Amino acid sequence: MTETAIRSRDNPIFKRLKKLAESSRARREARMTLLDGEHLLAAYLAAGGTPHTLVRAESCDAARLAAVADCRQAKTVVVPDALFAELAPVATPTGVLAEAAWLTPQAPVDLALVVVLEDIQDPGNLGAMLRTAAAAGATLAVLSKGCHDAWSPKALRGGQGAQFVLPMQLAADPGSWLRDFSGTSVALAPEAAHDLYTLDYTGPTALVVGNEGAGLSAATLAAATTRARIPMPGRVESLNASAALAVAVFEALRQRGVRR
Amino acid sequence: MTETAIRSRDNPIFKRLKKLAESSRARREARMTLLDGEHLLAAYLAAGGTPHTLVRAESCDAARLAAVADCRQAKTVVVPDALFAELAPVATPTGVLAEAAWLTPQAPVDLALVVVLEDIQDPGNLGAMLRTAAAAGATLAVLSKGCHDAWSPKALRGGQGAQFVLPMQLAADPGSWLRDFSGTSVALAPEAAHDLYTLDYTGPTALVVGNEGAGLSAATLAAATTRARIPMPGRVESLNASAALAVAVFEALRQRGVRR
Repeated sequence: MTETAIRSRDNPIFKRLKKLAESSRARREARMTLLDGEHLLAAYLAAGGTPHTLVRAESCDAARLAAVADCRQAKTVVVPDALFAELAPVATPTGVLAEAAWLTPQAPVDLALVVVLEDIQDPGNLGAMLRTAAAAGATLAVLSKGCHDAWSPKALRGGQGAQFVLPMQLAADPGSWLRDFSGTSVALAPEAAHDLYTLDYTGPTALVVGNEGAGLSAATLAAATTRARIPMPGRVESLNASAALAVAVFEALRQRGVRR
Repeated sequence: MTETAIRSRDNPIFKRLKKLAESSRARREARMTLLDGEHLLAAYLAAGGTPHTLVRAESCDAARLAAVADCRQAKTVVVPDALFAELAPVATPTGVLAEAAWLTPQAPVDLALVVVLEDIQDPGNLGAMLRTAAAAGATLAVLSKGCHDAWSPKALRGGQGAQFVLPMQLAADPGSWLRDFSGTSVALAPEAAHDLYTLDYTGPTALVVGNEGAGLSAATLAAATTRARIPMPGRVESLNASAALAVAVFEALRQRGVRR
């Protein structure tokens, strides 16, 4: 493994990496992102991905990178810690980054279990929701245009590798997607007449969750075949969007008798 | 409502507020915190709390504070925007803060449903977990010493008012609490033999969730009466701690037939 040292902000590779760190547009145009840390890199490799460039902070031991298997073909660049910090999404950088292409995992042939996410704006929330969907074996995540970028470094951190294994349809129009869906679509809404547990999720199902504050738009609510609320007996009247999605997705699995 | 203008960082009120913003020890010793924004302030008032001091950023219209009911007795201070920003927990401050005493809500007399949280370190996660417990009508949250401060401005933001209505036992030792608990305690652990849905939560129940990365300590696992895993058929092997808690808590409610 040969390493290239980058010394300056004017280096073209550094400029390219910095754009990927900061701009969702740059990520979208290149269909690339930056993976932060060995854990995400290992998940990417496990999912069959091949990183394009590995980035090591100068103070980070080269052996740490070498320990991650199968990366020998990737080009490695070493950057001074101050420059590395400009690329890393967290205050205490791990010292290891990878420039990597988006993966497009195949949809499982299982019975459809789709999550439709409208305008989820917090990267941590979005990442957690994708992680929940991936853990549940969801067949697809449909993300509206107003969602935070699913491939941003912060969303990747929240997703813990979910983006590498979960088929996603990005920048979608939830209303038209729901109108084309032939299964049952259930919009989670606090004012719904049905309670979550009275509905049947054993057929092809899409679960629809809206923005953290505003909930679902009228257009999306109208396009879903039914609405459900999660019964909340407590003195706080709503759940975090990510918690609500988890409750609904795992109720669907429970009804399907999934026991893995 | 008369207002006092603060002009300097040396003002004793400002110094006191700044300590509450920054130090969990200061909050613990005074049993006070800072509430950020009208939403939290309204939730605090609705729960029966009386704020001690209201803080308004100079650029924030005084009418916004006046619109929050029943605050006329509280002292109001006005601070320059630059000083206000030092007190606010978010990058884009709301312009309204309240210095407020911790509330100690009474435990409902309902059938016990306790959440035991060990070393939850992310304030957003902790807040979301308290919000889930409050929405579910949990009777108590037991927080280990290693948990993030439940009364920090960031945890309050994630909790959306949960801290005002949910009885909490702070800085607890989960192992000894569990040994004293006479109901069933279920530790969520990925390697558990039982699947979540095969257990009975219709009696007094404590649900036990561990640290985001490390999970539960051996001592806490040993103190719980049983262990359960959430079946995950997907290609990602774990849920966010907050999502896992939501799935378990709402499974307990479902079994109890709670339909409010």
